[in-house]
Amino acid sequence: MSLKHLTTGSTCPPAVAGLLRCYNMRFCPFAQRACIILAAKNVKHEIVNINLKKKPEWFFEKSPLGKVPSIELDGQIMSESLVICDYLDEVYPDPPLHPADPWRKGQDRMFLEIFGKVTEAVYKVYFSRGDQDILNKGLTDIQAGLDPFEAELMKRNTKFFVGDKPGMLDYMIWPWMEIFLAAQRLGGERVSENRFPRLFSWMEDMKKDPAIKATYISPDSHYKYLLSNINGSPDYDMQV
Amino acid sequence: MSLKHLTTGSTCPPAVAGLLRCYNMRFCPFAQRACIILAAKNVKHEIVNINLKKKPEWFFEKSPLGKVPSIELDGQIMSESLVICDYLDEVYPDPPLHPADPWRKGQDRMFLEIFGKVTEAVYKVYFSRGDQDILNKGLTDIQAGLDPFEAELMKRNTKFFVGDKPGMLDYMIWPWMEIFLAAQRLGGERVSENRFPRLFSWMEDMKKDPAIKATYISPDSHYKYLLSNINGSPDYDMQV
Repeated sequence: MSLKHLTTGSTCPPAVAGLLRCYNMRFCPFAQRACIILAAKNVKHEIVNINLKKKPEWFFEKSPLGKVPSIELDGQIMSESLVICDYLDEVYPDPPLHPADPWRKGQDRMFLEIFGKVTEAVYKVYFSRGDQDILNKGLTDIQAGLDPFEAELMKRNTKFFVGDKPGMLDYMIWPWMEIFLAAQRLGGERVSENRFPRLFSWMEDMKKDPAIKATYISPDSHYKYLLSNINGSPDYDMQV
Repeated sequence: MSLKHLTTGSTCPPAVAGLLRCYNMRFCPFAQRACIILAAKNVKHEIVNINLKKKPEWFFEKSPLGKVPSIELDGQIMSESLVICDYLDEVYPDPPLHPADPWRKGQDRMFLEIFGKVTEAVYKVYFSRGDQDILNKGLTDIQAGLDPFEAELMKRNTKFFVGDKPGMLDYMIWPWMEIFLAAQRLGGERVSENRFPRLFSWMEDMKKDPAIKATYISPDSHYKYLLSNINGSPDYDMQV
């Protein structure tokens, strides 16, 4: 499929019966979550990219929330990244991505809520629009939001958060880690590997995972996209 | 147990091995979610009420987020209402509260995300602090946030959202419906039953459910509490 993000005035590509479709924006970390799980589970699917600044009219007819990611199957729509990923984990159980123990699964889901501080801080950076104070606050908040994850990985003392293989918690926080590396450059500071030694080593391990490889966007590309977004003209169709 | 909400300077009540503890605030709709599911599942538990304006020091040691609801079992803590309720549903499967079909379960979880508009609007009302514009905006937003739920109940054409018995989606939105009735009084307007005929009939059915009966707070009590909160002195220990 084309990389091109469909916009106002476009026509919705015809659906294929029984084929799962994922509405995506290539640099949206929430949408990337769904793409990672689709890759991890080897789910046959098609991607339709959506221009988020000029959403196609037909997209709102399909999806009242008008959000990416959304998945569509035989005319029905599901939105919200965590909901979609848990759904995929249920219907494509191989490999299982949540801990089998309900308490541990709950703990991981709680950590995803805690990760909201990082996603909010990244949002601040994306929409800082040249305001240096907002930008700096965003960068500081990202690091503060990551502190509990550094501590938790230390405490668990496992290669990945979920164990010896990446699981749902690993995959769900990953997209923001890619952006984190790019965002740090905006502050003109070297990334503090000293502050996050475990997370940096975890990132190296994550990058070897096939699902991450399949969906990976380099810090260079994130940085270029980030600049275009801060300037108010997000370059969705940028070559990476 | 005492209704009294524990505060700074208090001592943590000793835990009983193997007994689930739920940290609660009696008028917190998020905490009420956990209480409803504990009742629906007949889970043996104890309640410890927390004064949210003056949280006990020991509470932060136990729960870094310092939030209610939190559940504690043998020294371990879990926070976030939806995470807790899904955990309880997994370990106490009788009765099952999610639809068995994963797509329908995902749809219900998506609707819980959509319900965030109502919880935010109620928050606005709670903290309007005498600002009539914020208050009115909150009341308007609550109604706008409920419109998709009226439409969805109509579309599903079932007694409850989940079917012929209340399920997770029904229980998770319920606490705000109690508050909705109380909050409307602040606007000096009669609640528009015309706008939400299905939801009003659903509320009557919900009130007959044993788990709702066990945790129900009347509109009168919510109204009194709401006023105390708007005035900046939430009366946690109020008799209901």
